[in-house]
Amino acid sequence: MRLQLLSWPEVESYLQRSRGVIVPIGSTEQHGPTGLLGTDALCAEGIALRVGEEAGALVAPTIGVGMAEHHMAFPGTVTLRPSTLVLVIRDVVQSLAWHGFERFLFINGHGGNLPTIKAAFYEIHAEARATRGAAAPDLRLKVMNWWDGQEVRNLGRELYGSRDGAHATASEIAVTRALFPDHIKTAPLDPPVAPSAAFHDSRHFRARHPDGRMGSDPSLATPEHGHRLIAAAVPALAAAYRSLLQEP
Amino acid sequence: MRLQLLSWPEVESYLQRSRGVIVPIGSTEQHGPTGLLGTDALCAEGIALRVGEEAGALVAPTIGVGMAEHHMAFPGTVTLRPSTLVLVIRDVVQSLAWHGFERFLFINGHGGNLPTIKAAFYEIHAEARATRGAAAPDLRLKVMNWWDGQEVRNLGRELYGSRDGAHATASEIAVTRALFPDHIKTAPLDPPVAPSAAFHDSRHFRARHPDGRMGSDPSLATPEHGHRLIAAAVPALAAAYRSLLQEP
Amino acid sequence: MRLQLLSWPEVESYLQRSRGVIVPIGSTEQHGPTGLLGTDALCAEGIALRVGEEAGALVAPTIGVGMAEHHMAFPGTVTLRPSTLVLVIRDVVQSLAWHGFERFLFINGHGGNLPTIKAAFYEIHAEARATRGAAAPDLRLKVMNWWDGQEVRNLGRELYGSRDGAHATASEIAVTRALFPDHIKTAPLDPPVAPSAAFHDSRHFRARHPDGRMGSDPSLATPEHGHRLIAAAVPALAAAYRSLLQEP
Amino acid sequence: MRLQLLSWPEVESYLQRSRGVIVPIGSTEQHGPTGLLGTDALCAEGIALRVGEEAGALVAPTIGVGMAEHHMAFPGTVTLRPSTLVLVIRDVVQSLAWHGFERFLFINGHGGNLPTIKAAFYEIHAEARATRGAAAPDLRLKVMNWWDGQEVRNLGRELYGSRDGAHATASEIAVTRALFPDHIKTAPLDPPVAPSAAFHDSRHFRARHPDGRMGSDPSLATPEHGHRLIAAAVPALAAAYRSLLQEP
Amino acid sequence: MRLQLLSWPEVESYLQRSRGVIVPIGSTEQHGPTGLLGTDALCAEGIALRVGEEAGALVAPTIGVGMAEHHMAFPGTVTLRPSTLVLVIRDVVQSLAWHGFERFLFINGHGGNLPTIKAAFYEIHAEARATRGAAAPDLRLKVMNWWDGQEVRNLGRELYGSRDGAHATASEIAVTRALFPDHIKTAPLDPPVAPSAAFHDSRHFRARHPDGRMGSDPSLATPEHGHRLIAAAVPALAAAYRSLLQEP
Amino acid sequence: MRLQLLSWPEVESYLQRSRGVIVPIGSTEQHGPTGLLGTDALCAEGIALRVGEEAGALVAPTIGVGMAEHHMAFPGTVTLRPSTLVLVIRDVVQSLAWHGFERFLFINGHGGNLPTIKAAFYEIHAEARATRGAAAPDLRLKVMNWWDGQEVRNLGRELYGSRDGAHATASEIAVTRALFPDHIKTAPLDPPVAPSAAFHDSRHFRARHPDGRMGSDPSLATPEHGHRLIAAAVPALAAAYRSLLQEP
Repeated sequence: MRLQLLSWPEVESYLQRSRGVIVPIGSTEQHGPTGLLGTDALCAEGIALRVGEEAGALVAPTIGVGMAEHHMAFPGTVTLRPSTLVLVIRDVVQSLAWHGFERFLFINGHGGNLPTIKAAFYEIHAEARATRGAAAPDLRLKVMNWWDGQEVRNLGRELYGSRDGAHATASEIAVTRALFPDHIKTAPLDPPVAPSAAFHDSRHFRARHPDGRMGSDPSLATPEHGHRLIAAAVPALAAAYRSLLQEP
Repeated sequence: MRLQLLSWPEVESYLQRSRGVIVPIGSTEQHGPTGLLGTDALCAEGIALRVGEEAGALVAPTIGVGMAEHHMAFPGTVTLRPSTLVLVIRDVVQSLAWHGFERFLFINGHGGNLPTIKAAFYEIHAEARATRGAAAPDLRLKVMNWWDGQEVRNLGRELYGSRDGAHATASEIAVTRALFPDHIKTAPLDPPVAPSAAFHDSRHFRARHPDGRMGSDPSLATPEHGHRLIAAAVPALAAAYRSLLQEP
Repeated sequence: MRLQLLSWPEVESYLQRSRGVIVPIGSTEQHGPTGLLGTDALCAEGIALRVGEEAGALVAPTIGVGMAEHHMAFPGTVTLRPSTLVLVIRDVVQSLAWHGFERFLFINGHGGNLPTIKAAFYEIHAEARATRGAAAPDLRLKVMNWWDGQEVRNLGRELYGSRDGAHATASEIAVTRALFPDHIKTAPLDPPVAPSAAFHDSRHFRARHPDGRMGSDPSLATPEHGHRLIAAAVPALAAAYRSLLQEP
Repeated sequence: MRLQLLSWPEVESYLQRSRGVIVPIGSTEQHGPTGLLGTDALCAEGIALRVGEEAGALVAPTIGVGMAEHHMAFPGTVTLRPSTLVLVIRDVVQSLAWHGFERFLFINGHGGNLPTIKAAFYEIHAEARATRGAAAPDLRLKVMNWWDGQEVRNLGRELYGSRDGAHATASEIAVTRALFPDHIKTAPLDPPVAPSAAFHDSRHFRARHPDGRMGSDPSLATPEHGHRLIAAAVPALAAAYRSLLQEP
Repeated sequence: MRLQLLSWPEVESYLQRSRGVIVPIGSTEQHGPTGLLGTDALCAEGIALRVGEEAGALVAPTIGVGMAEHHMAFPGTVTLRPSTLVLVIRDVVQSLAWHGFERFLFINGHGGNLPTIKAAFYEIHAEARATRGAAAPDLRLKVMNWWDGQEVRNLGRELYGSRDGAHATASEIAVTRALFPDHIKTAPLDPPVAPSAAFHDSRHFRARHPDGRMGSDPSLATPEHGHRLIAAAVPALAAAYRSLLQEP
Repeated sequence: MRLQLLSWPEVESYLQRSRGVIVPIGSTEQHGPTGLLGTDALCAEGIALRVGEEAGALVAPTIGVGMAEHHMAFPGTVTLRPSTLVLVIRDVVQSLAWHGFERFLFINGHGGNLPTIKAAFYEIHAEARATRGAAAPDLRLKVMNWWDGQEVRNLGRELYGSRDGAHATASEIAVTRALFPDHIKTAPLDPPVAPSAAFHDSRHFRARHPDGRMGSDPSLATPEHGHRLIAAAVPALAAAYRSLLQEP
């Protein structure tokens, strides 16, 4: 159930049976010569919608632009400052909490978002305590990457071994190829497996990863892999959502 | 051309021939008993993508949550504070400007966003001047509602007369019905044409517009109307985009 | 009744009979070779004080520096960033609301302020909801330009036709000449009617409007016109204020 | 020379001979049963304009609402949060500095503004350094209370002795009575000399100073005193302004 | 009692008998060729801990980085922007107030912090009023410099006369020499008594005070003086703390 | 070398041979019935100073109050909002970078700080890019927890096995007992090994961890263990610092 495709009375009905909601969050950032700029947003959204179906959960609008400062040396990357992303997450959570939502599972498609998401959760708790005191709503805010389940990790390893990489991974490229089979791009990848190294700012990132990939060989990625990865990811996320709902 | 479906080298190539970009911006807010919560975001995105095709323009990720404070008395509405939305727009523009984009057409789906969008534009100009002085980039930031062209206004009037209304309009509902024909909702609308009155905060809005509509009768909206409205809207927006590119 | 010229017990008495207040808001920005930099603030204040007399309303201190970023290429212009002006409006409203004021009519002298004023109103509503919930005060915040009434528009057209213009208008210059007859400036205006064009940042504004005027011929403005314009403006604003008080 | 009553070419000319400007800053806050709410703003503005005449200095728009949190238990008081006032001062200074102003004398009418004004000055210096580095303009920002000169202090003591007090002082009430002789208010003052004590928040202030005065007997204040106080204040401020201009 | 060396149950017990707390606040900034960069923080902390012992008061963690913008032309200086320091003070006070602390004595080691500290106090009061209204806690926030007592001033004058100076004073250097006898530095001081002049930004400060001192001759400072100064300072501060606790 | 115990000329000399600096960062938060509230700050500072000695590195002032929102249900805890901590880290880094420091190793004592620290690093990079563009300094910002080295982890496991726990760990209590042997506290721990569970806000944390510990048995901690843990931690951190300096 995609919130944007419901009417308000439908959400009102939903709230009578559940206080849970899923929030997809991704990024719009370079993913190497063959990866889509929207990879992280599209994977998070695509998988979150399937989790929503599986778990009967409402799926809020995707936060599609995240914290991608380190990718800004590649054209097309769009980033929010961490301080802005904190406010966006705060506003989205506070809006939904106003209507009665209390259990939030953020399904994340970009590792680089995690610190800011976690900082935002405590910003929300701190602000609630400061303004409402003991009357603050009992919010349960949780974030998982779509690849956090054991099964999806195993499958990634089985399919690509170490060539899966750390950014513009074969896995995430495969998922986008499953979701957007008409937008599969090819380009020479040289070297086939990209270098991977620690980095600091965006210039440093590009100096060390000249085509944007980190440690990956996305030429291995097929739409069929993507479907399998999605199928592997959804149950773990749905289970996590159900657990979150059932927390005492 | 949807930016999220391109690779970074494709954006690099694009920038060699154009400095223009389209940014869809909408809202996620109640649209009456039969309107989709995502109406404003979905219309803006759907139409912006067609404008992009028509004008050969890149389309940035949709800003799908806008300034919907006045609709917060209806469940499902999600809002950013105006101050947050200013920062989101600033960050999106500054990101794209960093890569060399200079001409921005925001295609807007929610009248309530306009003040904040315009405030954001001057926040961006002021910050550029303060930090870069005379070296600030020459940014041209323009916003149009998707219904701003004369043709689409005429068509709305022809189809619905005064029953088009001011919120949850027949026109915008028709557009979503064209774009999402599987998500057409029906519900009794009582009275058929909703009341329309000035309002202040969200409580006041709901007191005056109990089912969320303002002055509209969306039961008139058909997918076929939607297709005609889209067809009427796109040329004017594409023309405005081309004019923006050609400004000296 | 100018709030700054009352004592606190007088305001206390006032509050026992009325919850309404008028807030003049203008700008300090270039108004062409012969216009006063304070035109927008002085008109707003001068007219608001007369509306206050007519309607028995308290008039708060004038917010005399507004959002004038686009005029910054002309010396003497002073601007607040939109984000700052939002906070100023928020603080002024929250201060007065703390004492019990609930109905606010902002009388505005600068079109460029409107987006930020409207954004500020929703920032205030959002913050009240977030911190007070259902106990938030029932604030009614309304803004009108001093020239919004039909009569003043008619008179402007009658006096100047299209030579009234869009910035440094003959009308507003006339009002300042009525209010400050000792500060009438003359200078050659070349061309007599200034060009008028869309603009973006402050450099762009000046490139298109070299002496600061937009479409106007302020040489037509006389003090006597100014008095007539004020007389035409006040009743409509006073009526709007009374309506705001009487809103259920 | 009041900036708001000049045209932009006049300011342009002024800048060719001087980089100095005076900024009046006050407050809108209770001043006891007989004092004007605008006392601090009106005194600062009235005296600053005379200093401007004496010293040939431009006088910027008055910042008429200041930091008056501690007076908020009395109706009519309007306050900016310190954090807002910092931004207002920053924006005003940055606007004028953009045009070439470098020497700023703030003439202050409210002791409670001083910490925030001084904090703002360093916020401005810090931001300039952060964004411009060695190219930051050489801004000289100075604040004086209108009563800081020795002569005005002597006169206050001569006229009122210890009955001058610390808030709603006889001196400042006298100045407003000179400036606004038509707005002299009378009310029983009981006790004649108000108590004066340290205070914390606004509730505490009112508990200790039930009618708003601190240590003063403003019944002594006459318009004639006010004229003498103004005459005593102006030369010291004008001298300070000239010194600021002449600083190497 | 240093809060950082207690357990939470010990703080819980303390709160059953007292609502008071001492907060040391200093700065990390150049103190001339022989002064420690941490002088202001170390003095404030060292003296506050002794005041805590004397008065049986809890001592919160030291805020060791303050507002030192004007010293930034000397390496090693660390500064918070005033706006940041306001938030730090707000957060520390709100945290402790959440647990029930109500009487706060800030013991300050850096004159340059005072405006920002005082601005912060009113930011806290304003925010409490805005979010809690009449239910806001009754916070009593007071700041004293460690040298504010008459006895310590007398001793400084007795020991150094006018050679004590205004920054990198002989007194504060002496205190650090008493507290950190292993870190006494020597360097030629030329001239022996440093110049002292008003200053604006950090470049201006250094131009006027080339080695960082203002008006002082810290070569006079001995550890033994430091012990006497500490002994002179503590009773006045402890008395002030006790008075703050006893305020009705 | 503790920066606060150096003079500015000593820092100037240091900068001629090194661009590196260590920043200890901790928290002031409950650590169970027997742990010090300052545990995280004291461990970070104590170990960072030893790393500084070992590596010849300057050690900046400790950021002793961190992000401890989740511990706020226990008295004595002090927290910064994540948004405030971001600004503190930004200001400290920008101050030191202004003097020429480029390689920053944050030695962290509180896992809960990590998201905010990492968000702050990108806030700094983003702001540098926005204001300085290609001229932004080449900052290398790295954070390590003091327990991140393999040796210290092995030792913790050897000493305590699973009884080390997740908060108020035996390891960190042991370190404070080595550093502050006069402040060893005893109290009944019931159960001996505390429960450990995921948590959300501060109320939830306390409900699940009634005495504040998570999974730990700090009764096992001895000063001698602490000395061994420190000795195990320092080399890995010093090596990481040296690597950071040598990065190309």
